[in-house]
Amino acid sequence: MTLPKTVFRPPFAVTRASHLVSVVTDIAASRAFYVDTLGLIVSDEDRDTLYLRGIEEGCHHSLVLKAGSAPVCERVGMRVQTEEDLDLAQRHFAGAGLPAQWVEVPFQGRTLHTSDINGTPLELCAQMTTQPRRIMDFDAHHGACPQRIDHFQIFCPNVPAACEFYMAMGFRLSEYIVRDGTDELRMVFLQRKGNPHDIVFAHNSEQRLHHVAYTAPEVHHLMYIADLCGKNGFGRAVERGPGRHFGPGYARYVYLRDPDGHRIELFNNHYQTIDMEDEPIRWELSRLNRLGSWGPGPSASWLNEASAFAGTPHRLRDAS
Amino acid sequence: MTLPKTVFRPPFAVTRASHLVSVVTDIAASRAFYVDTLGLIVSDEDRDTLYLRGIEEGCHHSLVLKAGSAPVCERVGMRVQTEEDLDLAQRHFAGAGLPAQWVEVPFQGRTLHTSDINGTPLELCAQMTTQPRRIMDFDAHHGACPQRIDHFQIFCPNVPAACEFYMAMGFRLSEYIVRDGTDELRMVFLQRKGNPHDIVFAHNSEQRLHHVAYTAPEVHHLMYIADLCGKNGFGRAVERGPGRHFGPGYARYVYLRDPDGHRIELFNNHYQTIDMEDEPIRWELSRLNRLGSWGPGPSASWLNEASAFAGTPHRLRDAS
Amino acid sequence: MTLPKTVFRPPFAVTRASHLVSVVTDIAASRAFYVDTLGLIVSDEDRDTLYLRGIEEGCHHSLVLKAGSAPVCERVGMRVQTEEDLDLAQRHFAGAGLPAQWVEVPFQGRTLHTSDINGTPLELCAQMTTQPRRIMDFDAHHGACPQRIDHFQIFCPNVPAACEFYMAMGFRLSEYIVRDGTDELRMVFLQRKGNPHDIVFAHNSEQRLHHVAYTAPEVHHLMYIADLCGKNGFGRAVERGPGRHFGPGYARYVYLRDPDGHRIELFNNHYQTIDMEDEPIRWELSRLNRLGSWGPGPSASWLNEASAFAGTPHRLRDAS
Amino acid sequence: MTLPKTVFRPPFAVTRASHLVSVVTDIAASRAFYVDTLGLIVSDEDRDTLYLRGIEEGCHHSLVLKAGSAPVCERVGMRVQTEEDLDLAQRHFAGAGLPAQWVEVPFQGRTLHTSDINGTPLELCAQMTTQPRRIMDFDAHHGACPQRIDHFQIFCPNVPAACEFYMAMGFRLSEYIVRDGTDELRMVFLQRKGNPHDIVFAHNSEQRLHHVAYTAPEVHHLMYIADLCGKNGFGRAVERGPGRHFGPGYARYVYLRDPDGHRIELFNNHYQTIDMEDEPIRWELSRLNRLGSWGPGPSASWLNEASAFAGTPHRLRDAS
Repeated sequence: MTLPKTVFRPPFAVTRASHLVSVVTDIAASRAFYVDTLGLIVSDEDRDTLYLRGIEEGCHHSLVLKAGSAPVCERVGMRVQTEEDLDLAQRHFAGAGLPAQWVEVPFQGRTLHTSDINGTPLELCAQMTTQPRRIMDFDAHHGACPQRIDHFQIFCPNVPAACEFYMAMGFRLSEYIVRDGTDELRMVFLQRKGNPHDIVFAHNSEQRLHHVAYTAPEVHHLMYIADLCGKNGFGRAVERGPGRHFGPGYARYVYLRDPDGHRIELFNNHYQTIDMEDEPIRWELSRLNRLGSWGPGPSASWLNEASAFAGTPHRLRDAS
Repeated sequence: MTLPKTVFRPPFAVTRASHLVSVVTDIAASRAFYVDTLGLIVSDEDRDTLYLRGIEEGCHHSLVLKAGSAPVCERVGMRVQTEEDLDLAQRHFAGAGLPAQWVEVPFQGRTLHTSDINGTPLELCAQMTTQPRRIMDFDAHHGACPQRIDHFQIFCPNVPAACEFYMAMGFRLSEYIVRDGTDELRMVFLQRKGNPHDIVFAHNSEQRLHHVAYTAPEVHHLMYIADLCGKNGFGRAVERGPGRHFGPGYARYVYLRDPDGHRIELFNNHYQTIDMEDEPIRWELSRLNRLGSWGPGPSASWLNEASAFAGTPHRLRDAS
Repeated sequence: MTLPKTVFRPPFAVTRASHLVSVVTDIAASRAFYVDTLGLIVSDEDRDTLYLRGIEEGCHHSLVLKAGSAPVCERVGMRVQTEEDLDLAQRHFAGAGLPAQWVEVPFQGRTLHTSDINGTPLELCAQMTTQPRRIMDFDAHHGACPQRIDHFQIFCPNVPAACEFYMAMGFRLSEYIVRDGTDELRMVFLQRKGNPHDIVFAHNSEQRLHHVAYTAPEVHHLMYIADLCGKNGFGRAVERGPGRHFGPGYARYVYLRDPDGHRIELFNNHYQTIDMEDEPIRWELSRLNRLGSWGPGPSASWLNEASAFAGTPHRLRDAS
Repeated sequence: MTLPKTVFRPPFAVTRASHLVSVVTDIAASRAFYVDTLGLIVSDEDRDTLYLRGIEEGCHHSLVLKAGSAPVCERVGMRVQTEEDLDLAQRHFAGAGLPAQWVEVPFQGRTLHTSDINGTPLELCAQMTTQPRRIMDFDAHHGACPQRIDHFQIFCPNVPAACEFYMAMGFRLSEYIVRDGTDELRMVFLQRKGNPHDIVFAHNSEQRLHHVAYTAPEVHHLMYIADLCGKNGFGRAVERGPGRHFGPGYARYVYLRDPDGHRIELFNNHYQTIDMEDEPIRWELSRLNRLGSWGPGPSASWLNEASAFAGTPHRLRDAS
């Protein structure tokens, strides 16, 4: 297989997965879940919007929840390094015939609304209002102590196109899964910030958001958040894990579903991948667990359900 | 309901769950599981027998594995406080018309072979050969770092009889489960050493050993042993968890099956229950998770499979 | 050396270290320390008294703080098994020519005020009012998540007499320290509940309370409570550790001083010692660290300062 | 104060702290420390050289130990992104009148030997031989489970010059310490890889290496490695901690000294700092602990001793 070539001098500098904008149907229920149970910090809120961040984040928000009638994902947010990179990005997307519109977004610098080649609604900015990092405010730490946003995982009907599109923007492919004995890409792990993933695409018939992931400090936080969910009436929210990926990323994880069914992953380890010689790691679908495995495996809901993007059909895709 | 009364001046002093004697069909496979993966310490071994203990145990063995043709549990071992207690025990069992035979057992003091009212084969002694506690031998700690034997759980067709029998010996009832709205005992947690259980009986049509439990130091050991099992080819051994009992004991657990299907629990927390005013805690079967819960629930295998006792039909009882 | 003989049939059944009654000079400051920072649970309080317990304790209190003018320790509390044991205890102490007075104490059953052979003011009871165990109330867990009282350590001018006195009551000697090459007891670890210590005596020129100890669940709680103390203005309270005893008990510990200078230890591991064949472990003073060691060693304050008992000179004994 | 300006389009792309080359006087003693106790992985070794890496590193080495007569630091290694960056670097250093010599180094691509403005001997390369990441080889994890090299800390007589020099190369200043009420830089934390530091300079009269730092997975690994050092005869190696920096980086740390006195830090947390709006955090020397603190503070040895660089006077600088 000829994978797309790594671009070390990209047209503009994306730096990292930045934030997610999602619509929820009951902002109070979402607050009880994300803030009171999970432990995200409230940066700002009004009747219809919650701006949340992890306990170590100095940027204003990594998760924006807006009240609405249908639980959809509105925007996947990425950061670029400088305002100049933002201008270069605008020209890049416009030049590719994609949307590239300047918009005003509260607490963010100039913001570009665009989409990727498969229609994922993207939002890029170079700056946000800052907030104090709460690293040392131990009294404010609770729940899973989510530290920072790490990555997005997206269902996608055309994974090869996504891979090529993001690698042309300078994303590096850290790991990928192919159908056995073929070069047909089923899942690609793409990164800019030096760990395995900022954005992941998994083959599916529809373009949807599978999950957003935050880091948690230690293994015991993953067990504790499951216990706390169980105790606080969110027991059914614990969809998968705590467990371990014996495959790409190798993360220890727990996957939760919020009151609208949006999925969030908490995980506590990743590896650094920065060097020129780091080649993408190839996995075959049927031998994903070649390293071993334990536990019941993912449920049908985890495999099949995901959040629609705004503008696409709204309901959560159901396994049935 | 009238539960049996607590006996504060018992006929003889049982002190704790002591050891388990089990038959395994491939001693090398068992060694790879219990020693190389789980991290139990070998006190002695010959071609046909393995004497194992936890990393903090100063007694010679808490698990004895004997090579044999069928995977059965041979004896459930209990300790009494003194040699005088052992004599009192012998008279107690004999007086009840139960077996009460003195036997020689390697590395143990005078040993009494008897059985409980439901036929569980018991072995009582007051002393064992001592071994160094390996608490500070950090280089010898690996796997789950199992510290010490804690309790047995036994399938039993007559739970009320078991409850009465053990309470007459001075066991205290810490927690129990009844069929909803009735006083019909389905599960009893009985203890001598001051935490919730030395021996547990759960209603089932046959008398069998469900599991032996060891303590592990911390939550991360429960996740680590699952990962290690997954990596070392024992992934299918991870039958349930890591998870949390939202019911009697409240333990964080992981249940593993050894190469013969014998089950071992590792858990890392219990509470102290010593005081006169500690009343047995009552749970109704259908409201076991009244505190909440999370996770997929126990599998059919965990609910139904258990090791036969020697002398009773030999195969593991299968769910099918 | 002839150590006192273990008494397996004691005159009455002490079961465990139960509670400490201390006088503090500023009850609000003590509350900020013990409740808001350490994480003990308030069972009851009025303007002058705080009744506290650990997160898993079902008894009403394990620490009673009374407002007063001088920071002293008022009583060291022990439990006996039954009301009959309490009567036997009363006769035992009276027969030894020691105080043995019945008193009324809130939230306790009949209570006996007495003292040991060296004048330690003791309080014995068989029952307390019960409170819910907060094991599963995860939202109520914070700070060090102290689980339960474990033991007392006491400065004592006559350690051999203390050892003999408590062993005659059925306490077992788990470990002891002698002056090198002699049989002169410098420190004795005495226990009833089956782990290394309910009460410890260390040689010193005065009879004083060195510390009360609570268990904490895991290593990370020991580090976290140090951080939290540092952040909440109690940084100087962290007197020693987190560290590890390479000697009797082998515990991972952190020692804190409360606003009045009373000392509390949090530790997260001990071993079980129940069996007849468990012989006391002998250590020589100069070879205490024969297992190794690390860290700066105890400070002069830890070695020399301790709380006076009520009725004895009041000030904290100072190293200078 | 006018701090140097952040350079978002640097002359060449340094990516991260890469490796350290040190001279040790007894390679077997160093192996016992770094490999058998700490848990670094051996990538290659011969009689005179040890090539070591962390358990998740895919590059060949992050620590090279060479046998020699005097314990010095030979080279501080940095990575650049591509071979083209390496050529640009060569011109950059040569143009600044600094050494810029191509050398052959085993297991590395083309390597540039140079030095910074204060004489720190540097080694830059774009590629190394790869090795399997041992992330999932749980049986190979032991000791502190060091994951990867993170940063260097260097004593430096001219901190402002170092700050300016590295920022001109595109390093960002994450945090800095000034003498109270002045703009006099005493310590600067400089980074390329998106966390607080790749290289740190602290004011001192001599140019020396203070420590190299590796990440460890969790808090319990920091306590465990101290215990293991204590048990394995390296107790005096535990120079500082486990503790917490209530200042730049906020890390939970333990500092160890190897058999030659070279210092290594293990720490288990840092924060992400990538965004354009992240301003350097200013600390005043006398108010370093404005967030609080606990513990005995750094020893004189930690404050004053450091490894000489090769070519500069050889002995470890002593506090006395």
